[in-house]
Amino acid sequence: MSTPAYTRLDVDERRRQLLELGAELFARHGYEELSMARIAREAGISKALLYHYFPSKQAYFSATLEQAAEELAEVTEPDPSQPPVEQLAASLDAYLGWVERHMGAYDKLIRGVGAVPEVRELVERVREETAARILAGIAPDREPSPMLRAAVRGWLWFMDGAVLDWIEHRDIDRPRLHALLLGTLLGAVTASGEPLG
Amino acid sequence: MSTPAYTRLDVDERRRQLLELGAELFARHGYEELSMARIAREAGISKALLYHYFPSKQAYFSATLEQAAEELAEVTEPDPSQPPVEQLAASLDAYLGWVERHMGAYDKLIRGVGAVPEVRELVERVREETAARILAGIAPDREPSPMLRAAVRGWLWFMDGAVLDWIEHRDIDRPRLHALLLGTLLGAVTASGEPLG
Repeated sequence: MSTPAYTRLDVDERRRQLLELGAELFARHGYEELSMARIAREAGISKALLYHYFPSKQAYFSATLEQAAEELAEVTEPDPSQPPVEQLAASLDAYLGWVERHMGAYDKLIRGVGAVPEVRELVERVREETAARILAGIAPDREPSPMLRAAVRGWLWFMDGAVLDWIEHRDIDRPRLHALLLGTLLGAVTASGEPLG
Repeated sequence: MSTPAYTRLDVDERRRQLLELGAELFARHGYEELSMARIAREAGISKALLYHYFPSKQAYFSATLEQAAEELAEVTEPDPSQPPVEQLAASLDAYLGWVERHMGAYDKLIRGVGAVPEVRELVERVREETAARILAGIAPDREPSPMLRAAVRGWLWFMDGAVLDWIEHRDIDRPRLHALLLGTLLGAVTASGEPLG
């Protein structure tokens, strides 16, 4: 009656596990270095089974990025029952938590963002969606002014730059980084001349 | 007595002209697309002469980047006879003027920053040097705190993000963008908790 453990894994569950492993492997080794054979070995499955889930390394890599972006969107999803500033503070904290769990991958993605077109598109898409979310919180019932739009977009870059600095030096604790990020957003919105609320 | 005009160009002057042309061509076509033959044709010189100046496309490309970085450092060089905030305001204005003159190249460099290792190193080096300059202005006689360092480094990213937004939309005039950038730096430094001066 018994079958090897790996065959009993639910398809979705195995896919999810393969994507998690992929995020880790790509962060550690880089895209060029990794082969599907190596990935299959690390996953403890046959190459044929790996190809059954993902038709190519490219497809596998894209899927790990998608999964990471979805997870990030989920954990940073704002709670609409809270006031805008608290929503933002909570999402930002969740963002930093996510970065802490995926530090190597985050560092590699953001620094090497132009190297792989998929990564560039993903990072730009995440920034756009995040900007739209923040603008909807700050200026809920109107079209944001160009200055406010530039302030929020610039701030998303600030966040990546400050977070890379945090990862590199590890000499700031997370609550202080959080305060720096939130305070700078407030400074940028103020400098944009846009009234809040 | 007469020789073709191109042979009369001073060696340094021709090198400078070739680097200017290179900056424009690489911005328009991208590294992969351009060949040395094409570059020579656009410059109106022989391929042999081009190779006399630059031993390879790679070397030519690196030299155009170096030239751009030097020009940028020159125009944004602060005037030490001015107070720190005025120095910063003047350098920032010069930076925006430089971006206006090289908009296509700037956009391509910053968005595709990870694609070519030379570009990535150059952008990171320019950011580091600029951060050191700003920190020397803000905290002249002391080691900057980690929070201040992260604030300034983050702000350099803010600047690139806001400038890309400016290039994309062209709906903010330069003085207002300048005010947004300077105001945000003030906000970030304040949020870092570092006393000024």
